[in-house]
Amino acid sequence: MAAVLRRGFRLVSFGSSQLLCGGCKHGRTSSLSICSTSSRNSSSSSSSSSSHVKVDLDGSTGIAVVKFQSSPVNSMSLDFLTELCISLEKLELDRSCRGVILTSALPKIFSAGLDITEMYGKNPEHYAEFWKSVQEIWLKVYGYSKIAIAAINGSSPAGGCLVSMACDYRIMADDPRYRIGLNEAQLGIVAPFWFKDTMVNTVGFRTTELSLQFGLMYSPSDALKIGLVDQVVPEENVLSTATETITKWLAIPDHAREISKSMMRKPMVDRLLASRESDIKNFVNFITKDSIQKSLGFYMNSLKQRKA
Amino acid sequence: MAAVLRRGFRLVSFGSSQLLCGGCKHGRTSSLSICSTSSRNSSSSSSSSSSHVKVDLDGSTGIAVVKFQSSPVNSMSLDFLTELCISLEKLELDRSCRGVILTSALPKIFSAGLDITEMYGKNPEHYAEFWKSVQEIWLKVYGYSKIAIAAINGSSPAGGCLVSMACDYRIMADDPRYRIGLNEAQLGIVAPFWFKDTMVNTVGFRTTELSLQFGLMYSPSDALKIGLVDQVVPEENVLSTATETITKWLAIPDHAREISKSMMRKPMVDRLLASRESDIKNFVNFITKDSIQKSLGFYMNSLKQRKA
Amino acid sequence: MAAVLRRGFRLVSFGSSQLLCGGCKHGRTSSLSICSTSSRNSSSSSSSSSSHVKVDLDGSTGIAVVKFQSSPVNSMSLDFLTELCISLEKLELDRSCRGVILTSALPKIFSAGLDITEMYGKNPEHYAEFWKSVQEIWLKVYGYSKIAIAAINGSSPAGGCLVSMACDYRIMADDPRYRIGLNEAQLGIVAPFWFKDTMVNTVGFRTTELSLQFGLMYSPSDALKIGLVDQVVPEENVLSTATETITKWLAIPDHAREISKSMMRKPMVDRLLASRESDIKNFVNFITKDSIQKSLGFYMNSLKQRKA
Repeated sequence: MAAVLRRGFRLVSFGSSQLLCGGCKHGRTSSLSICSTSSRNSSSSSSSSSSHVKVDLDGSTGIAVVKFQSSPVNSMSLDFLTELCISLEKLELDRSCRGVILTSALPKIFSAGLDITEMYGKNPEHYAEFWKSVQEIWLKVYGYSKIAIAAINGSSPAGGCLVSMACDYRIMADDPRYRIGLNEAQLGIVAPFWFKDTMVNTVGFRTTELSLQFGLMYSPSDALKIGLVDQVVPEENVLSTATETITKWLAIPDHAREISKSMMRKPMVDRLLASRESDIKNFVNFITKDSIQKSLGFYMNSLKQRKA
Repeated sequence: MAAVLRRGFRLVSFGSSQLLCGGCKHGRTSSLSICSTSSRNSSSSSSSSSSHVKVDLDGSTGIAVVKFQSSPVNSMSLDFLTELCISLEKLELDRSCRGVILTSALPKIFSAGLDITEMYGKNPEHYAEFWKSVQEIWLKVYGYSKIAIAAINGSSPAGGCLVSMACDYRIMADDPRYRIGLNEAQLGIVAPFWFKDTMVNTVGFRTTELSLQFGLMYSPSDALKIGLVDQVVPEENVLSTATETITKWLAIPDHAREISKSMMRKPMVDRLLASRESDIKNFVNFITKDSIQKSLGFYMNSLKQRKA
Repeated sequence: MAAVLRRGFRLVSFGSSQLLCGGCKHGRTSSLSICSTSSRNSSSSSSSSSSHVKVDLDGSTGIAVVKFQSSPVNSMSLDFLTELCISLEKLELDRSCRGVILTSALPKIFSAGLDITEMYGKNPEHYAEFWKSVQEIWLKVYGYSKIAIAAINGSSPAGGCLVSMACDYRIMADDPRYRIGLNEAQLGIVAPFWFKDTMVNTVGFRTTELSLQFGLMYSPSDALKIGLVDQVVPEENVLSTATETITKWLAIPDHAREISKSMMRKPMVDRLLASRESDIKNFVNFITKDSIQKSLGFYMNSLKQRKA
């Protein structure tokens, strides 16, 4: 039956097959120069690169590899997040692409999380724009209509962990020095509700409670044990395992997979969409506090001195 | 204290001790000839059989074995579902019955799931009636006031998995060729929200997300690992293990067990009861599409040719 | 960054950093004689004792050990609950205290749960007052603003299990004769919705469903397997392991930990706060039934005869 239905079935739509209502619309696309990926010739491959993200789409398999290449630690700056979001949106609209793999082009780090320089010495409008871009990358990845796999070839704290959890599947390199987790509490800060809900939906309530309260970071094997990642493999196999997994899943009819995913994730996507403004306002109120700015300035100076 | 309370306690009722408000009321009882089970003499045993379901109630233990006997694969046709629902309702009203075991009388298959012939070449009224009977069997089993155990002595895809999950406990035969799971996505279709919620309440959010999106089917040992079944035993012990389990649990005062079950499951039962009509409408809209009917016709023809 | 932020950060507050709105206010404080613990000199230690609860606060570590000492089995009487709640509230207000360990001063028992003599032969006002104190101890522990660890050095059925689950972490002695669980159904009674929700948030929906329906009690190793406790250690190490755990977590900035905890638990705390009166009314209606009082009387007589 399967083969027949894959060809012929049209599915009951839940209003719209587009999981995510919004788009990458925070008005910074003008400064970007991402090459357009091919959307007509499905057998040709294409490659594009911007300062922070490199995209390789294999037209024969439909699999795109999206590599973070923002030295030194793939910090999620406003530019990084904007480029990543636009790259993912283009791939989502590209009919020759059926799935994406998120990974790092840098050694030992998947992503260090949100860029602290975006949160210091700027005006409230900048903070609001930055937080909006954090929301957007989550909305884009968590509600992605195509298959998204995180090939975690390095440490992945805070925002790096969030983006990993927003994917459909997580494969992590088995290097015991790598860590993954929402460690915000260790830094004296608190993850917003949608970070929390993403984690609850990944590892359950109890593990999330412990994780968030104590900012726990997990080794690859511990992350596997609690379900924070789905597979742990030797680092040289991370990408090939991701490709095999995505290839296997491409046998599933796209619409059935997509609507099933939407049925699971739409309630959470809708919750953030309904409270984006208040969530931004909360962040701006927090980050503009004198005590916070003072601490961040102190921290950034200490970083500069260490480099010098 | 236990022994005393078992004799004397009357419990706080949550409005009604009847878990399920509806009943088997889709108007097809006239064509059935299920023998009435004894409701007076609690020490006598009784047996009844219809074309699709065989019921053996042991009056001395209070345990009824409900066997699916609809050759060749226990497909859940409208008649099958109607007979099963009526059998379960009779047992629920029979005071000599305290628990039921659902199992298959056929080799290698528990149930192949919903009968595809009920979804092809019929009129919308028929589709609506069929879907209503699918809802009813779930409402009956998930909200069953007595103990219900699935003795899964064969493969159990899609609808077969749903009915298993709706029971209180699942014991599966250890034959590594058997499979269980909600594999709808593999067929290009999507399970409705109450299939999804039943699975979330059984194996958690994350496993359900993976399962539904990719239509995963699990071997008995994998099903045990994710909690989709509670025990895996040699096939010849499936029924005896179910009997032992139910016997052990009969030590619990009925009312306490029943109200505890209702406290866990009533919210989900209520959710479907509140949206039965729209859920039926969704199904009829889907199944009456030309593309779906064409695919199903093509599939059924290929089945016929294979048999010939 | 961590060290800096621990010193300087002020956090986004979720309205109030106080997790629990209510307090221990059921008007029985006058009969108690708990010594006030030091709230000024953070390096001095203090000790207080009442008839049911002994408190030792180590001013140098900030860790308070709260010992149940209500012979013979730490039954949770109205007095016990009131004293425990007041002790915990005092420690919560004491700035020199950063975390508490709940444990038993008696051999083989953590707590036997709610005291049955509070539920027999009294007037409705007494039952209401008693149930209010049960609610309050849960509200206090589940919403505790400081770290709370259960050092479970003995069996912990029903109410004892509830208080354990309300803590942030559970360490149990490895004695295979000890048991823990919500066994209400075995006694013919049903745990209220907030007992259920606490268990769902600890071990998940499916395990809770089985546990409550059949009143399951778990050995330490089984409790560890399902996540009902977090660690199982030799009995002589229970307290030291609790101290080590709490010490490790004290490295986390208090405000970040506290707000993260609130983000996870406040929805459940709010649910009970919104329905305290109806929850009390349900309990009083249940316990004043003739059949219940008769059963309890019969049970208490049998207990007396056994002692004689």
